[in-house]
Amino acid sequence: MSYTAPVNDMLFVMKELAGLDDIAALPGYEDANADTAQAVLDESAKFCGEVLAPLNVEGDRNPSTWRDGKVTTTPGFSDAFRHFTAGGWQSLQHPPEYEGQGLPKLIATPCLEMLNASNLSFALCPMLTDGAIEALLTAGSEEQKQAYVPKLLSGVWTGTMNLTEPQAGSDLALVRTRAEPQADGSYKLFGTKIFITWGEHDMADNIVHLVLARTPDAPAGVKGISLFIVPKFVGGARNDVHCVSIEHKLGIKASPTAVLQFGDHGGATGYLIGEENRGLEYMFIMMNAARFAVGVQGIAISDRAYQKAVAYAKERVQSRPVDGSSKEPVAIIEHPDVRRMLSTMRALTEASRALAYVAAAHCDLARRHPDAATRAGHQAVYEYLVPIVKGWSTELSLDVTSLGVQVHGGMGFIEETGAAQYYRDARILPIYEGTTAIQANDLVGRKTLRDNGVVAQQLLAQIAQTVDALVAQRGGAFESMRQQLSHAHHALQASVNFVVWNAKNDPNAVFAGSVPYLKLAGIVLGGWQMARAMLAAARKRDEDPSFYDAKIATAQFYAEHVLPQAAALETSIVSARGGEGVLGLSADQF
Amino acid sequence: MSYTAPVNDMLFVMKELAGLDDIAALPGYEDANADTAQAVLDESAKFCGEVLAPLNVEGDRNPSTWRDGKVTTTPGFSDAFRHFTAGGWQSLQHPPEYEGQGLPKLIATPCLEMLNASNLSFALCPMLTDGAIEALLTAGSEEQKQAYVPKLLSGVWTGTMNLTEPQAGSDLALVRTRAEPQADGSYKLFGTKIFITWGEHDMADNIVHLVLARTPDAPAGVKGISLFIVPKFVGGARNDVHCVSIEHKLGIKASPTAVLQFGDHGGATGYLIGEENRGLEYMFIMMNAARFAVGVQGIAISDRAYQKAVAYAKERVQSRPVDGSSKEPVAIIEHPDVRRMLSTMRALTEASRALAYVAAAHCDLARRHPDAATRAGHQAVYEYLVPIVKGWSTELSLDVTSLGVQVHGGMGFIEETGAAQYYRDARILPIYEGTTAIQANDLVGRKTLRDNGVVAQQLLAQIAQTVDALVAQRGGAFESMRQQLSHAHHALQASVNFVVWNAKNDPNAVFAGSVPYLKLAGIVLGGWQMARAMLAAARKRDEDPSFYDAKIATAQFYAEHVLPQAAALETSIVSARGGEGVLGLSADQF
Repeated sequence: MSYTAPVNDMLFVMKELAGLDDIAALPGYEDANADTAQAVLDESAKFCGEVLAPLNVEGDRNPSTWRDGKVTTTPGFSDAFRHFTAGGWQSLQHPPEYEGQGLPKLIATPCLEMLNASNLSFALCPMLTDGAIEALLTAGSEEQKQAYVPKLLSGVWTGTMNLTEPQAGSDLALVRTRAEPQADGSYKLFGTKIFITWGEHDMADNIVHLVLARTPDAPAGVKGISLFIVPKFVGGARNDVHCVSIEHKLGIKASPTAVLQFGDHGGATGYLIGEENRGLEYMFIMMNAARFAVGVQGIAISDRAYQKAVAYAKERVQSRPVDGSSKEPVAIIEHPDVRRMLSTMRALTEASRALAYVAAAHCDLARRHPDAATRAGHQAVYEYLVPIVKGWSTELSLDVTSLGVQVHGGMGFIEETGAAQYYRDARILPIYEGTTAIQANDLVGRKTLRDNGVVAQQLLAQIAQTVDALVAQRGGAFESMRQQLSHAHHALQASVNFVVWNAKNDPNAVFAGSVPYLKLAGIVLGGWQMARAMLAAARKRDEDPSFYDAKIATAQFYAEHVLPQAAALETSIVSARGGEGVLGLSADQF
Repeated sequence: MSYTAPVNDMLFVMKELAGLDDIAALPGYEDANADTAQAVLDESAKFCGEVLAPLNVEGDRNPSTWRDGKVTTTPGFSDAFRHFTAGGWQSLQHPPEYEGQGLPKLIATPCLEMLNASNLSFALCPMLTDGAIEALLTAGSEEQKQAYVPKLLSGVWTGTMNLTEPQAGSDLALVRTRAEPQADGSYKLFGTKIFITWGEHDMADNIVHLVLARTPDAPAGVKGISLFIVPKFVGGARNDVHCVSIEHKLGIKASPTAVLQFGDHGGATGYLIGEENRGLEYMFIMMNAARFAVGVQGIAISDRAYQKAVAYAKERVQSRPVDGSSKEPVAIIEHPDVRRMLSTMRALTEASRALAYVAAAHCDLARRHPDAATRAGHQAVYEYLVPIVKGWSTELSLDVTSLGVQVHGGMGFIEETGAAQYYRDARILPIYEGTTAIQANDLVGRKTLRDNGVVAQQLLAQIAQTVDALVAQRGGAFESMRQQLSHAHHALQASVNFVVWNAKNDPNAVFAGSVPYLKLAGIVLGGWQMARAMLAAARKRDEDPSFYDAKIATAQFYAEHVLPQAAALETSIVSARGGEGVLGLSADQF
């Protein structure tokens, strides 16, 4: 199989780091115990490995195509989508009231990872549908929920999110699409939306577009944007929304990225969701879920690239070992630098996975914990982690997929090998659903400054406790982790202080370091999870020595090769004289 | 223009950092003064910008194609190649005895950079021809030199290097191609060579393949490999070497990468170069030049990506400034994180350029200095620098071209934008002519251990002098550089010591850190050049305040955002308990 889901590592993280037992104790999640998790993950692994993974390369070679307004998807995708929805995979974490299965995010997340690892292009269709469902559940009327959600869950229809316009990418204040109210309470929409993922295709009977637009008297800027449902078909009749082209992209080629034209033939019929001018607010609620999901895409493509590189490194024989232990050439996995590359890929993937699953558990606790204050606390931690999971995991995926190519040597550059596809596919991840800079601005502005760093300090205190717990363990691996996590903790502490203390008087200095701060937070929080994993491994080692020893060795590698970067990032953030270095050149000197 | 050669920065580096005046004082280089350099660079900039740069995107969209053994190149390439050779650009640094122009490498290098920045795929053809010329001049008979070199210089013929076979990539000991001696002193060759750059095409009358092969009684391994000339046409008759396919690649698509079949129809006629079994030795001499050239490719593609990103960032208007200085959206170059990305691209490009040009000057001094001991000294420094220029500059180019995509946001992922092509093209650079790991092994094994670190210590002593010189300068920029370069110097010192002291007793530990050591050396030596550039800028500031202030600001950015990584690399190399972390997992635990 070209992809084997790492079910053991996933279950380890869920149980030992993310507290699956605590989640299963929440009201409404009583069935979500370890046995359920194992069963769901095994079934998902089977489906993703057998059905979706083999279609991945096909999607790259025979991408979706556009002709006369119609998009034809890669052969095999429609069938796979029917199997996917028939298997209930779309409805995993959605509420039972609308025919969902109501599983916690902690169980849905590994399934999401498998889905994306097996076929990133395919996975985007259900991911966007998830986003539409989330928006409808958040702000839709009961009638709208009943009308759309069950059809979206069953896969008869799919959903999209229409935000971007040619002049409005990161800056949604610039959205121009118009929505004119009609006598019957509906609206007519006019405008152009670009970069609409799965905006047109042949896998479902209808496509439910959720569209940001302005009503005639709306205020300028982000406070005048409303959210509308614009279905491709309304009551069986074709609506005036048309796909005028799809993009020719670097990667995720099977996923059609549509330019949608609304209202060129009299106006596209749309229905307001929630209240006027609150569209961006609804989008932001949904966007936390979408951004988290894109972060998981980063982890997924990293794992896929890792698996392929390992397989090649075990098979390819080249050169004698540097320590003279053999006169014959050996499999390249025996060479220290190949081992270093594979260990880097593995350590980064495991750390980012652990952090994402822990974030998912916070989300579940924020939704279902009986105590309101506890819910609010977990919500705050989840919201702090979302931009890190999104930004850090996707930036990592660029490094990991690049190393995947490098392990393959010259073969990595040949498209037929397949390693290059992951490298190309991954490149969109730090861009869409908000670039890394947008995530970093969110982390600084909304997630760190708004509460004066309270959540960040709580996390730092927990990291300090883990550092203390490492002291009791013997051996070089634990000693390395204790030392490096302690240094890294100080680096993050200093950076959080810098952000909190300087944001008002010198915003340029703080935002010049916002992406380094996001990366630093990712490295340290990921390292913290690896440290917790080591401690769990020490406790449980005798149950499965090979698995737990590998976990400890991977954590040691992370401590010695990833955590030391924390101090360098701190220097860039804190010691760089208020962004003077970043802003030292005037625009015309570039 | 889509590419404007940075002639000012190039001339600054040549004069102030690489010592152009000293080179022009060498016997045989009397004409290579600043005026000559300026004239050659201006002319090269014009040709590359006007003729080659516009063809670059065309080469990506209409790559070379193969049909029935023939390769048709991208429309426009043949004409451009005629202009290129007619302009004398192939003969720049080759000796006048064979109709070359005999210019120093220091002047040829910026021209090489321009050539590659304007069109990486195109540039590979003359680069491989350079390699063939170098091999012939090194080891060919006078008759061979006369027969081939002038034709290669004039562009009537082109050259290739045939090393790789399916089972023999990094490990040339595994080469199997056979060469059977014939009664007339020639040989018949049989075998398959892969990854042969410009191995077949329609731009020249003949192609001179230089081929590694084994004679019947040759010893096994690398000591039994000889080097042969195998022309596509011999005396007007088609030789038995045929292109059976070309590769479908991630990037540099206009450059045909051929599978060549030798001897399927009775044997390909070949001529031995130099002595039997010394082929690899000749290749290594030539390879220093080829590896240096690939390093320059990394700098070139970085600069091209930088220029494109700057142009987009100045033009694209999106979002208000974070410091509240405007209520209107501004060009994205005004946003701190975009500035950080562009500054990173710029600082890495300038530092790697400076290091490469300084290396070129050492090469010229090694060739032409009247004193033999001085020549040997410069040769040793040049050889130490080559794997760093190759490995570090090409690894950097991955980061720089990736940032180039990121600056473009969603547009960066659309192929028509062009930023993605640089990202794809660059990916081969850390692989071909020896992967980064191979460069790092060379840096450790041949360049650091063989002389017990003497050259490395010489360079460290010079860096320490530069740190001292920074003390006399006032201002935060110089203070940052002094502090960070001093830390970085210590990190490199500790790493060199670690390598020298541990290579024999613990080779795995040393080679587990070989790529980090190469990157560390690149970061520190590049930072050293930026520090020297600051000092020169302080001296000359009044002549051109805008240029020199920008140089100082870029150097400050490098000090604060690149040099801090040195300490992290030192930890990975030195403190990582003898590679325990890298080698902690057994092969079957991956």
